[in-house]
Amino acid sequence: MIIDQIQIRVRYAETDNMGFVYYGNYAIYYEIARTELIRKLGLSYKEIEAEGVFLPVNLMEVKYIKPAKYDDVLTIKTTIDTKPSSRLSFKHEIYNSENELLNIGKVSLTFISANTGKPCKPSKKFEDIININFLTN
Amino acid sequence: MIIDQIQIRVRYAETDNMGFVYYGNYAIYYEIARTELIRKLGLSYKEIEAEGVFLPVNLMEVKYIKPAKYDDVLTIKTTIDTKPSSRLSFKHEIYNSENELLNIGKVSLTFISANTGKPCKPSKKFEDIININFLTN
Amino acid sequence: MIIDQIQIRVRYAETDNMGFVYYGNYAIYYEIARTELIRKLGLSYKEIEAEGVFLPVNLMEVKYIKPAKYDDVLTIKTTIDTKPSSRLSFKHEIYNSENELLNIGKVSLTFISANTGKPCKPSKKFEDIININFLTN
Amino acid sequence: MIIDQIQIRVRYAETDNMGFVYYGNYAIYYEIARTELIRKLGLSYKEIEAEGVFLPVNLMEVKYIKPAKYDDVLTIKTTIDTKPSSRLSFKHEIYNSENELLNIGKVSLTFISANTGKPCKPSKKFEDIININFLTN
Repeated sequence: MIIDQIQIRVRYAETDNMGFVYYGNYAIYYEIARTELIRKLGLSYKEIEAEGVFLPVNLMEVKYIKPAKYDDVLTIKTTIDTKPSSRLSFKHEIYNSENELLNIGKVSLTFISANTGKPCKPSKKFEDIININFLTN
Repeated sequence: MIIDQIQIRVRYAETDNMGFVYYGNYAIYYEIARTELIRKLGLSYKEIEAEGVFLPVNLMEVKYIKPAKYDDVLTIKTTIDTKPSSRLSFKHEIYNSENELLNIGKVSLTFISANTGKPCKPSKKFEDIININFLTN
Repeated sequence: MIIDQIQIRVRYAETDNMGFVYYGNYAIYYEIARTELIRKLGLSYKEIEAEGVFLPVNLMEVKYIKPAKYDDVLTIKTTIDTKPSSRLSFKHEIYNSENELLNIGKVSLTFISANTGKPCKPSKKFEDIININFLTN
Repeated sequence: MIIDQIQIRVRYAETDNMGFVYYGNYAIYYEIARTELIRKLGLSYKEIEAEGVFLPVNLMEVKYIKPAKYDDVLTIKTTIDTKPSSRLSFKHEIYNSENELLNIGKVSLTFISANTGKPCKPSKKFEDIININFLTN
């Protein structure tokens, strides 16, 4: 298991008429959370793309419990439970500053070769990094 | 069952670095699809809000199959399978102009009273409209 | 002069905490307006990009007069006053359904060659189309 | 004069088909920059709204020089040149990590009373804070 945690402040642009964060915008927060997790492991999503691998999302499930509001500082806890094959799955939990659980998101991505447009395995470097961090965590 | 269908053209702002519609933006398309379905039934979401009822999303599941691209004209087929209680559930299927299924989204909303902040039943008018359309469809 | 007019309905996702369309989102409306104007002339922005020419924005000026609200049907009047050189300039006026002027946007784009990354002239086809429509309008 | 500086990392969701930050999204960056400047002065925009004053934008001018790209860390330099009356004006300069100037934005906001919907003066507290910081900077 690999765990990470980041904080994000809700922007005005992300709120809606109801006064809450628009339900589709949590996908952005999840994206930032997984990007920063990967960065802390010593890689970057940009680097992965530069090596000819895209990581489109194949599945997203969001359970909305409570809304986030403008200017809230949110904590996003992100977990990788399973070692990636051609897929890489994240679980995200978003908490507000009162430590209330606002929503839970599961996002699964597929490694796609930019050349073939087909699913592929992660790079050796990526696998090594995951393996090391699964051991040490 | 209630069925509706709308068309949407992909905007430049909705695409991302990969050249595809950003995965979080389909939530916007689903929102438009359910809004227009409700409008065709003779109501409007704006009117529902004006009567003191909010409809926040409590669950969203998206299965991504193929990406939508800039300027694509997408067809969104929307279905209400079950009569609403305090919840209202939609199933959306998005197709491109080659009639390829791009993704499937399930979105469930809760009727919330603006006064109490608690789940509530839909208005009599809303229930009547749903009942009539379940019969006639 | 070339004039066009389109209608857009305000989406929930485009509103903010104030209950109005977020001030940055009018840039999206302007983009749709100029895209549709070009399409009506017989071209498409997608086609221009496919021919190796990008059209990034070099200048935007927006004067905000009144806010647009959720579900409003807006009319966007778009004008090209000057024949394009390496730049193409649009003036947009957005009106609500009461015909109140909500804002005025001026957006100037530069033709950039995808090969050189430098400003370039529009294609012969594009120039011809503009010339024909300046004459006939 | 009051000066502030913040850093922002470009999100995937903010890029477009061209591989750059969508031109309308800089408005979001400017908003964050002015919000954080106000916060450092000891106020918060949320607090201002809670006191019954909205700050809608009445004017935005953006000069786009170079594009920002995915994952870039941007520096936004924000300046208040003039003491606010019923208007509050910011100048923003965005730089990438090579210290290249990407764009310049001028954004002017109007203090609006939530009660009357009309322009109003900033609160005494706000004026005092601005005055103190104009003196000490």
